[in-house]
Amino acid sequence: MRTDRPTDQVLALLVALVSCLLVQACVSQQDEPPSTTGAPKVVLIIGDGMDDQQITIARNYLVGSGGRLTLDELPFRGTVQVQTVDEDDPRQPVYVADSANTATTMATGEVTSTGRIATTVGTGEDVDTIMELARAAGFGTGIVTTSSLTDATPAAFVAHVDQRFCQGPADVAQGVERPARFIDCSSNSKASGGQGSIAEQIAESGIDILLGGGTQYFDQLVEGSTATAVADAARANGYDVIRERDALANHTNESPVLGLFSPNTMPVRMRGAGGAEARRVENVDGQVRLPEPFVCEPDPAFENTPTLAEMTRAALTHLNGTEGFMLMIESASIDKQSHVRRPCGHIGELGQLDETLAVALEYSEAHPETLVLVTADHSHAAQIVSETGEFIGLNFASPGYFARVRTPEGGVMGINYATNDSPIREHHTGSQVPVFGSGPGLGELPRFMRQAAVFSIMARH
Amino acid sequence: MRTDRPTDQVLALLVALVSCLLVQACVSQQDEPPSTTGAPKVVLIIGDGMDDQQITIARNYLVGSGGRLTLDELPFRGTVQVQTVDEDDPRQPVYVADSANTATTMATGEVTSTGRIATTVGTGEDVDTIMELARAAGFGTGIVTTSSLTDATPAAFVAHVDQRFCQGPADVAQGVERPARFIDCSSNSKASGGQGSIAEQIAESGIDILLGGGTQYFDQLVEGSTATAVADAARANGYDVIRERDALANHTNESPVLGLFSPNTMPVRMRGAGGAEARRVENVDGQVRLPEPFVCEPDPAFENTPTLAEMTRAALTHLNGTEGFMLMIESASIDKQSHVRRPCGHIGELGQLDETLAVALEYSEAHPETLVLVTADHSHAAQIVSETGEFIGLNFASPGYFARVRTPEGGVMGINYATNDSPIREHHTGSQVPVFGSGPGLGELPRFMRQAAVFSIMARH
Repeated sequence: MRTDRPTDQVLALLVALVSCLLVQACVSQQDEPPSTTGAPKVVLIIGDGMDDQQITIARNYLVGSGGRLTLDELPFRGTVQVQTVDEDDPRQPVYVADSANTATTMATGEVTSTGRIATTVGTGEDVDTIMELARAAGFGTGIVTTSSLTDATPAAFVAHVDQRFCQGPADVAQGVERPARFIDCSSNSKASGGQGSIAEQIAESGIDILLGGGTQYFDQLVEGSTATAVADAARANGYDVIRERDALANHTNESPVLGLFSPNTMPVRMRGAGGAEARRVENVDGQVRLPEPFVCEPDPAFENTPTLAEMTRAALTHLNGTEGFMLMIESASIDKQSHVRRPCGHIGELGQLDETLAVALEYSEAHPETLVLVTADHSHAAQIVSETGEFIGLNFASPGYFARVRTPEGGVMGINYATNDSPIREHHTGSQVPVFGSGPGLGELPRFMRQAAVFSIMARH
Repeated sequence: MRTDRPTDQVLALLVALVSCLLVQACVSQQDEPPSTTGAPKVVLIIGDGMDDQQITIARNYLVGSGGRLTLDELPFRGTVQVQTVDEDDPRQPVYVADSANTATTMATGEVTSTGRIATTVGTGEDVDTIMELARAAGFGTGIVTTSSLTDATPAAFVAHVDQRFCQGPADVAQGVERPARFIDCSSNSKASGGQGSIAEQIAESGIDILLGGGTQYFDQLVEGSTATAVADAARANGYDVIRERDALANHTNESPVLGLFSPNTMPVRMRGAGGAEARRVENVDGQVRLPEPFVCEPDPAFENTPTLAEMTRAALTHLNGTEGFMLMIESASIDKQSHVRRPCGHIGELGQLDETLAVALEYSEAHPETLVLVTADHSHAAQIVSETGEFIGLNFASPGYFARVRTPEGGVMGINYATNDSPIREHHTGSQVPVFGSGPGLGELPRFMRQAAVFSIMARH
């Protein structure tokens, strides 16, 4: 019965050796001293909620379990410990983060409490963001996201408020009703000595290019005005405000750009066939009925939406004339689609991130002084589980929400969402998250870092 | 309201720079050519079920969310895509693995189906393991585990059977009753032309040192005998069979060693106070009652159990005289304690792994020709979730099993186990898993690899 299968083993060795040779070029490149021919450029790509489970789900679907994402090719890979503290007692650690406090940490180096946008825990003092530091140093700045530009991740790079929900002037004037609580944003009003809503702060930010969703906030009247919307205020500050995919493609002048392509979060690229999503496993008279497997299809709502890669290309073109730049790009709906248990949705948005990374790497090849960092802000709910419920002789059904996604390579992937029994949404989880990179100096970095180091790496570059 | 907080930012930069300098030594070390003064030595440490969530849970508890494990100090870090195929159609991917097929892949480079121990999918042909190749090349060999030595992970390095449950002669003779199915092991009997149970194959393996649990299998009579237990057969093959912690400490001669320190899986180091573990959230008249937080305490059952680090030290001492060696060490109950939803259990076993890694690194410092690799075989169920159930204004309760662990740094960590609603056990999940390393040649490795590459890296070394 014994066979040595030497050809298989030789093959495995050859594959390993060729892989090493291919990667060696990257490793050498990463050890080169920073190029002195160009001013430093930083592209930070954040996959909101993009943990190891999410990446594996997307890989299995998009390129197959034997395939490789662009992410997988990056020469630097490490892990990031996310840190959050309690608002009332900052000595107290909190083990699950949100996108506001984590984006604050990456944008400022400051560890804070959930919900805070570039403000200190407890005391609410503003903390300078990397965008503000870059602008002060004369660099170009840009923010690209698939969420509303006023949403937590982009906001923390450009605005300062105590609560992420204070997105537009109406929120500051009236407060925000959230499930089970009311958010009072009044201390952010200019009348109270604050800096206004996130949208108003963006309109005054001077960031060179801002692309994402959020017209519903930018169409609100600025505080104290009966005629001027936030978008008008941005125009008065020199911004070209564009709202169409074509206008983005055709924009060529050097004016700062505020691109708003949807009322709030931008539509996503993929959905389950016919809108299929995870659902509770039915139990009829003691008989478990697993949901039917489904495939993913293009989401019709996505038509005419600029892709993240398109927006990124536009931002890189716009910033290319500047003397160095800091560009933050977020694929926001990896998180948002996981919250609402739509596996094809988060697969498609991770695909958007991976495509965008290819655009950034193409740029950095031509501009080797570019540091490209990819990371996540926090981990999420979705887990790959047995698609039949059978596992080493034990049968089970998910106690939460469950989907079976048929992959192009011919498998069926079971995806479990079970962090809570709310019919509304899943919650984040508290795992360390991956960090990837390419560019000068990364070879010297530790493989384990705290999230504040993401700020330090960018600031140092 | 604005403060620049320059001291904080300077501090963050300094911390980042000092970290870089500290790690640079490791990076340089990793780029050195393999030492030619000693024969190649490989220490592979497998954390069974040790994914990013598990590592973060253990870090938060053992060293605090701002602390660092020994794992975190390793200069190489990458990720491993686990691969499994369907027994009936090997072209069909399966997205959740078990410890048998994953250990087979690491031990042999072969991708196979769940349950298989170093045999090919479908056809059941034996595949040479790295231990067999090492022995054939004249190297020393060792296996250390906290499970029974006949359990899936160690078994796949030394034995060949179609089903992991065929552990002792009684299993081969009578088959094994598993929940919802019966495992027929009869084709493994020597009478049928097989190689016997896993225990019998271990007794004949010639591996220089084997340490773990499993007396219940080694005390069974070998196939066809009315007097000779498997342990007797091992003795006849030259093994010193030892069963006590003291005997391990005092073992000095050069005979091969079979150390058996418990009937099956070895006791674990830690448990929840008074035996506390995760439980279902109570819902009394619509009022959710979260379980009370608990701390971890030493598990009294662990007394007089050799630690994984002690066993590793004994194995390294034993193998030090050999001309190069291959040593596999497994912390098995990270997985087993997660299956039964005992957070303190898996925290303690990850702590055992981390201590063991320190022993291996100490050895490799004195013997720089040593390659130390640490990885997991598959990901697991546990997730860190909000401990109060509250998250950005939404309240929830876990639909599965839930624990609140009070950490020494003063936080409370919510841990969710909800891959299935079985009262018996959680199941594995299908995420990519981390790989860490230290030693010559690792700097050249790709940061993303398939699990078969773990075999190739060791074989190449």
